[in-house]
Amino acid sequence: MKHYLSLFLLCAMSILQAQSIQSPSNKIILNFKLGTNGQPFYSVNYKEKPIILESALGIKLKEKAALDANFEVMDTKKATFNESWKPVLGEQSSILNHYNELTVSLIQKETKVKMNIIFRVFDEGVAFRYDFPKQNELNYFIISDEVSQFNLTDNYKAFWIPGDFDSNEYEYNETKLSEIDNSKIDMNNGIGVKSIPGKYIVQSPLMMKSTSGLYLNIFEAAVVNYPIMHLNVDVEKYKLNAQLVPNAIGDKAYLQTPCVSPWRTIMISDDARDIVGSKMILNLNEPSKIEDTSWIKPMKYVGIWWEMHVGKATWDYAGSQNAQNSVTKDLLPSGKHGATTENTKRYIDFAAKNGFDGVLVEGWNVGWEDWFGNWKEEVFDFVTPYPDFNIDEVTAYAKAKNVKMIMHHETSGSVANYERRLDRAFDYMKKYDYPAVKSGYVGKIIPRGEFHDGQSMVNHFNFVARRAADYKIMINSHESSRPTGYSRTYPNYIAAEAARGNEFNAWSIGNPPMHETILPFTRLLGGPMDYTPGIFEIKMSHYDKSKTEQVHTTLAKQLALYVTMYSPLQMAADLPENYEKYNDAFQFIKDVAADWDESIYLEAEPGDYLTVVRKEKGKESWFLGAITDENARNSEIKLDFLTKGQKYKATIYEDANNAHWKNNPIAYKIRTMIVTTKSKIKLKLAAGGGTAISFEPIK
Amino acid sequence: MKHYLSLFLLCAMSILQAQSIQSPSNKIILNFKLGTNGQPFYSVNYKEKPIILESALGIKLKEKAALDANFEVMDTKKATFNESWKPVLGEQSSILNHYNELTVSLIQKETKVKMNIIFRVFDEGVAFRYDFPKQNELNYFIISDEVSQFNLTDNYKAFWIPGDFDSNEYEYNETKLSEIDNSKIDMNNGIGVKSIPGKYIVQSPLMMKSTSGLYLNIFEAAVVNYPIMHLNVDVEKYKLNAQLVPNAIGDKAYLQTPCVSPWRTIMISDDARDIVGSKMILNLNEPSKIEDTSWIKPMKYVGIWWEMHVGKATWDYAGSQNAQNSVTKDLLPSGKHGATTENTKRYIDFAAKNGFDGVLVEGWNVGWEDWFGNWKEEVFDFVTPYPDFNIDEVTAYAKAKNVKMIMHHETSGSVANYERRLDRAFDYMKKYDYPAVKSGYVGKIIPRGEFHDGQSMVNHFNFVARRAADYKIMINSHESSRPTGYSRTYPNYIAAEAARGNEFNAWSIGNPPMHETILPFTRLLGGPMDYTPGIFEIKMSHYDKSKTEQVHTTLAKQLALYVTMYSPLQMAADLPENYEKYNDAFQFIKDVAADWDESIYLEAEPGDYLTVVRKEKGKESWFLGAITDENARNSEIKLDFLTKGQKYKATIYEDANNAHWKNNPIAYKIRTMIVTTKSKIKLKLAAGGGTAISFEPIK
Repeated sequence: MKHYLSLFLLCAMSILQAQSIQSPSNKIILNFKLGTNGQPFYSVNYKEKPIILESALGIKLKEKAALDANFEVMDTKKATFNESWKPVLGEQSSILNHYNELTVSLIQKETKVKMNIIFRVFDEGVAFRYDFPKQNELNYFIISDEVSQFNLTDNYKAFWIPGDFDSNEYEYNETKLSEIDNSKIDMNNGIGVKSIPGKYIVQSPLMMKSTSGLYLNIFEAAVVNYPIMHLNVDVEKYKLNAQLVPNAIGDKAYLQTPCVSPWRTIMISDDARDIVGSKMILNLNEPSKIEDTSWIKPMKYVGIWWEMHVGKATWDYAGSQNAQNSVTKDLLPSGKHGATTENTKRYIDFAAKNGFDGVLVEGWNVGWEDWFGNWKEEVFDFVTPYPDFNIDEVTAYAKAKNVKMIMHHETSGSVANYERRLDRAFDYMKKYDYPAVKSGYVGKIIPRGEFHDGQSMVNHFNFVARRAADYKIMINSHESSRPTGYSRTYPNYIAAEAARGNEFNAWSIGNPPMHETILPFTRLLGGPMDYTPGIFEIKMSHYDKSKTEQVHTTLAKQLALYVTMYSPLQMAADLPENYEKYNDAFQFIKDVAADWDESIYLEAEPGDYLTVVRKEKGKESWFLGAITDENARNSEIKLDFLTKGQKYKATIYEDANNAHWKNNPIAYKIRTMIVTTKSKIKLKLAAGGGTAISFEPIK
Repeated sequence: MKHYLSLFLLCAMSILQAQSIQSPSNKIILNFKLGTNGQPFYSVNYKEKPIILESALGIKLKEKAALDANFEVMDTKKATFNESWKPVLGEQSSILNHYNELTVSLIQKETKVKMNIIFRVFDEGVAFRYDFPKQNELNYFIISDEVSQFNLTDNYKAFWIPGDFDSNEYEYNETKLSEIDNSKIDMNNGIGVKSIPGKYIVQSPLMMKSTSGLYLNIFEAAVVNYPIMHLNVDVEKYKLNAQLVPNAIGDKAYLQTPCVSPWRTIMISDDARDIVGSKMILNLNEPSKIEDTSWIKPMKYVGIWWEMHVGKATWDYAGSQNAQNSVTKDLLPSGKHGATTENTKRYIDFAAKNGFDGVLVEGWNVGWEDWFGNWKEEVFDFVTPYPDFNIDEVTAYAKAKNVKMIMHHETSGSVANYERRLDRAFDYMKKYDYPAVKSGYVGKIIPRGEFHDGQSMVNHFNFVARRAADYKIMINSHESSRPTGYSRTYPNYIAAEAARGNEFNAWSIGNPPMHETILPFTRLLGGPMDYTPGIFEIKMSHYDKSKTEQVHTTLAKQLALYVTMYSPLQMAADLPENYEKYNDAFQFIKDVAADWDESIYLEAEPGDYLTVVRKEKGKESWFLGAITDENARNSEIKLDFLTKGQKYKATIYEDANNAHWKNNPIAYKIRTMIVTTKSKIKLKLAAGGGTAISFEPIK
């Protein structure tokens, strides 16, 4: 009898050793198995073809046995989840979260440590995470490495940026995996702080395409109390390994059970639109923890910002004078300071006149004379305006004009200083009724030795969002680690930069025309980006004849970006006087929405083009954005997304026939049509160009 | 003519190359010279004998040329300073600050970097610091090492503790310099976190005595924005070198000109009383930066604290249950929790009845179930009481009884967590009208990789004092880096532990009887210590028959400590029921002052004995404390410090004839005498004993 039982158990065990689940559509199959030495592996098939070959799973611990082998399967569980949820702000008013789940409960033979691996298979991809249950065998632990592997079948074309622990503000490289090599990148790219640990480490999200037309995207979701994952690429065998960002003493993460790792995600489709439109990253995050979200609102804004980038004004009050620890009254104003009361009022007037919600003012507070590049701990106090910025007067003026002020907190990377002053900074904002803050992290991090992408900085960015929620303040972080969907959980984390923004076009080699066609497949999967589009005076020679820098765009493409780059926070980044010069084109920026009921990606090819239409939240208006890379492009769009039986006035903002991002970027034309759901519109995009269309229902 | 001028300049230069200054009394001579390679040196003579032989000076920089050679003297300046100042709280109401100063202005030949070395010579010692003026040649810099040397002439006897970057809670070792060896110390000493970088590194202040009877003390003053200096001892040549505490990545200090190093101090005398009574460290700090100091008051207090140390109660609410991130209401109370509303009221009653100013309550806030030893970042939030501690009720009760509550903030070393919650914690204190806080730093520091004694922690402790001053809150830090006189600048930094306190006697090998005879020569030079004396039930077997631990003291010595261990914050640390049992002895604790007009050290020998008398601030009462080490001791004290023509009632609390710290520690007797300035009192101290006397003027 005993023998039979053992045999039965052995059978049961061997059944458990290998498990599979499929996506709801059955196109994707995820296989789990334990190797002979008890090492966990997974593999993924798509439409019956192997996409991820057998790949290792596990975690290495500091001063404890590695959790990457010698496991037995204790139990497995399968479940199906299918529900919709409503984001506070979003690309669509309702998001479907539909997946099949496999939980593999492992126990390590010697240590008796228990670890679960949870797999979720969606129609557009696979996700897995490590789950460490509360147990006597594992309480506190330190992660020294994660062994998660992504063993690819092919030398994919990849859109990659170097795996820099301190910056994600790179142009994308479009090469084969075998051609990845950070040492070949021109590092004269305007990035202030760089920490690249190796030649073959790239960042995630990593967007790829196979020669056979399969799209693959490797990323992560719900990075909470964990460092960012970069990817270490074996450029010969196309194996990718998780590369966690270390802290000052080389450790990766400090955890206590019960706890989980972030989700590692693999999106797969033969249609790029499935990836760019995926809500998988948001779905893998926790629902909103903010109960009353009535104060979280989309915002279109203008601000004192671009004039500093183009050299017309300065952030600092005193020019090159070194403020050190002296009082500001000892400094002589340079006369070029942007954030004056008078200039701020001008922007408030402009915002009020054109229906913008907010005005951002950078350089309002003391410290800018000596803020960057020296690892200085106490730069800004976040509560002391320059003498020429009268915050009482500005506040009263904005209130009278029904315009909201957006605060600016540049930390210069000194997070220690920011955290110890954060409550005072937020109190100050509430005193002056600022509903939102743009934060900045330009510089090496303090506590010294930490990286922008390490666990403690991830925790910092999340902490600021949570703490801001206590104050009912919305956050827009710049130079932060890139988001992984935490805005679902804290929807007041309304936007982030965390990629190479439009600003680089003003004073560096800039962003090539394909840049904005890639971001929606990478950076934007994790959450909205404050890209700051809307530059109408495209060439910097406009401001200074000797300058050759320019935005790599046509004017019409700048309009299209308001639709293609989803964000509930959208800046009209150019100067008021430039908008007044092109008032008919400016109309699109005034009209376009920032929060949506529905979004449909009509055409998508990373690195080449993107066309999307979105329906304004709670309204019948639709907006279309279409952009292309350095190549001109024609296409025809069916308007079958429009409501049947409804007539719309379509206003089409497009490149003029002779427009070209380099030679003739501003040339645009505007035409109107009456259209219905049966209409088609021909799009004609110049090289580096775009088209923006508003569809207003005719009553 | 040109030749003559050159010759003149050369002479002038060579005159500048060597300079001397003397102490006001002329007993000490400080010599400065530049070596042949432009290396700065100093030496010190006392009463015409060399005490510090030629010793190197300078600083090494990261990624910049070292500032320790190739200098020329640009200029030298001498000055005399002689004034008195009034400390807010202190051992005396007026402090004389009298010294001669030599400033040597150096310029480095190649780099043109300017550095000044400032020497001050007081009657009881020498101090020097590096001064980095604002200059184009040096703005931001990183100190990688300090080369300051103390080249001694003799194999001094030293009272030393290991140069631990994380703890100063050691027993003193009394050995020759040649016998210093950290590897020989029994590390089973109750200290939780230890970081000892080498065998021959010891802490400063380092108290020494030569065979010929000369006392020498090496320390530092005004450690602000700089790490703590330990001393690296050459045990063969008796050369000591500055050993600065590094940060997480090995750097020592981040500075920007203009800036200064702390003062390096050498106290010298053939009378130990000159050292124990010296105010040199305070004098070398900046005057108070707090304008209104009316809220800074001395405090005698009792509290819920010792009962945890003796095992009668616990800090935590739920016994061994691990709170993790669960809510406290899920925890089952163990029934041993000390900080209950009821128990707190008992202490408030006791304080009110016996004239104490305050009541400390430890373990009042959630987190103690899982607080120590795991480098956990978020342990305490400092604003959430346990369910059995009703802070509203306690506050109202204390107010009705005119007793002030003392807050407790244990950070468990997670400074990151404390700083980001500090304003909330202080707001909470103000809401409940707590005027003072005891802070704790038990555990490895977070940000991880930092040490208790590094620059960023020094900055933290100073920051908390400054921020507390904004809230009019007094600070008493435990497990902090040891103070170096910053309480002059921020007198609300009323006390610190920062040495091995009385608590170690409850649960470890404890503090040998000589311990308290050394602390005034070391730890106390930097500022008041919250030693928590007053233990009447001396043997832990009182609480648990199986325990062998005890305080290494007689009861009378515990009384004497209120006078010998200067602090404006003094705890009566024992349990109310123990004081009620020995009410006649308790009377001294009730009577003794905590702030003074005058202090006279009558007898002093480090490691052996100390006798001091102090006159109560603004009163005619005097108090005497006399303590001895493990040896019994008789002496006779002249009362010539008393006011002429005034009669006093002297109440003498002394060891009974058969008292002994180990065999019969509690035995005491109390006698009274009528005395005048012409009287003498015979002191008879038991082994490990002491005498306390109050002198009350008779009207």
